[in-house]
Amino acid sequence: MSFRIGSGIDFHQLVAGRDLWIGGVKIPHHKGALGHSDADVLLHAICDALLGALALGDIGVHFPDTSNEFKDIDSKILLRKTIELIHAEGYKVVNIDSSLCLEAPKIKPHVPAMQETIAGIAGVTIKDVSIKATTTEKMGFVGREEGLVAYATVLLEKV
Amino acid sequence: MSFRIGSGIDFHQLVAGRDLWIGGVKIPHHKGALGHSDADVLLHAICDALLGALALGDIGVHFPDTSNEFKDIDSKILLRKTIELIHAEGYKVVNIDSSLCLEAPKIKPHVPAMQETIAGIAGVTIKDVSIKATTTEKMGFVGREEGLVAYATVLLEKV
Amino acid sequence: MSFRIGSGIDFHQLVAGRDLWIGGVKIPHHKGALGHSDADVLLHAICDALLGALALGDIGVHFPDTSNEFKDIDSKILLRKTIELIHAEGYKVVNIDSSLCLEAPKIKPHVPAMQETIAGIAGVTIKDVSIKATTTEKMGFVGREEGLVAYATVLLEKV
Ligand SMILES: [Zn+2]
Ligand SMILES: [Zn+2]
Ligand SMILES: [Zn+2]
Repeated sequence: MSFRIGSGIDFHQLVAGRDLWIGGVKIPHHKGALGHSDADVLLHAICDALLGALALGDIGVHFPDTSNEFKDIDSKILLRKTIELIHAEGYKVVNIDSSLCLEAPKIKPHVPAMQETIAGIAGVTIKDVSIKATTTEKMGFVGREEGLVAYATVLLEKV
Repeated sequence: MSFRIGSGIDFHQLVAGRDLWIGGVKIPHHKGALGHSDADVLLHAICDALLGALALGDIGVHFPDTSNEFKDIDSKILLRKTIELIHAEGYKVVNIDSSLCLEAPKIKPHVPAMQETIAGIAGVTIKDVSIKATTTEKMGFVGREEGLVAYATVLLEKV
Repeated sequence: MSFRIGSGIDFHQLVAGRDLWIGGVKIPHHKGALGHSDADVLLHAICDALLGALALGDIGVHFPDTSNEFKDIDSKILLRKTIELIHAEGYKVVNIDSSLCLEAPKIKPHVPAMQETIAGIAGVTIKDVSIKATTTEKMGFVGREEGLVAYATVLLEKV
């Protein structure tokens, strides 16, 4: 049996006038995440963890934020392309764990929808996709609600 | 053989007038960690990593900081309950690795006691529980001694 | 089959008048990383992840920054010593994934040289060493170019 692990981290500013996409789900909030794509911090961290597990580069290599092709793109498309790369290498996802650091809004009500979205794309069940959330206890740029951070860890297995 | 990985992160403010509990051990210091429970940043990160590995939600789902039941609670009790959940799912802990980010005090003298405490609850040996520590080189809220952060990674195996 | 996971994190300030060593490679930049050794944030995070996977302590335990022996030392030597410890325990590296958080300079052109350097020391191929990079979107001490952070995750297997 052949396993690989990967980990990813992503950051986005929170600003007025943008939608807040997290884990493929649009979350009602007075601020949204700033970025070239839809700025989905969780999907980006997961893409990076998947790519990292097989040393395929990072999200900036595959989906450059200087490319018009990826302007305002739905990050679910980026996750789908990433999963295709993983499968093409002969690997499948065992499980994904992730942590969101943000002060507001509350994420818990949206977690099941995020799990379904990610599990559907990754070809696993919702029991294989974990999304946790924490504040930073008012500290730092996350605590001041200037931005949010996502961490993801993945385990892959050779098919 | 069936494996799962999980990762957790936790943050607490450091304030005067509170005890400093880390890894189940009370550490002499002029500040302590602020929180609803005993605010043990390391045990919380480990609980989150364990829960995340099996997509069982997060520490806020299982032990809400709005509940009187968990007011000032010893986080070793939370870790014990978390380990019970892992065992109930048919998994055991292979190893736990963790990193503490804090400027002061020095953690190294307390690491063996933390390892024994955590290993005892998790049903593993002290060689299966790693606790590392680093400063943030005076940068950020950790560097200003306003708070501390813990990261934990776990590997679980189906029994 | 017996696996172990480890994770590491390291921080360094960026200051004028120092070289910038990352992943064993000297990178042209108007600032360098401050530290007792060559302050290679990526190699330090990888060393910590390797040590953590086998609960061998942390980089501060093995290579104390109070020791003259490690003053301005090439961190490739520290990685080599760490790998020797892993091998002495009967383990080998399966894969290493890592993330650099820094605002500037661009890391991508230097990634292949870093991969070769690390893979050579760790006794794996460059497909087993992943180095990803992200900015923090101008936020925090990394965003202000006051410092940089590296995260590393490793999977080890019993030989
Ligand atoms: Zn992003
Ligand atoms: Zn906590
Ligand atoms: Zn360092």
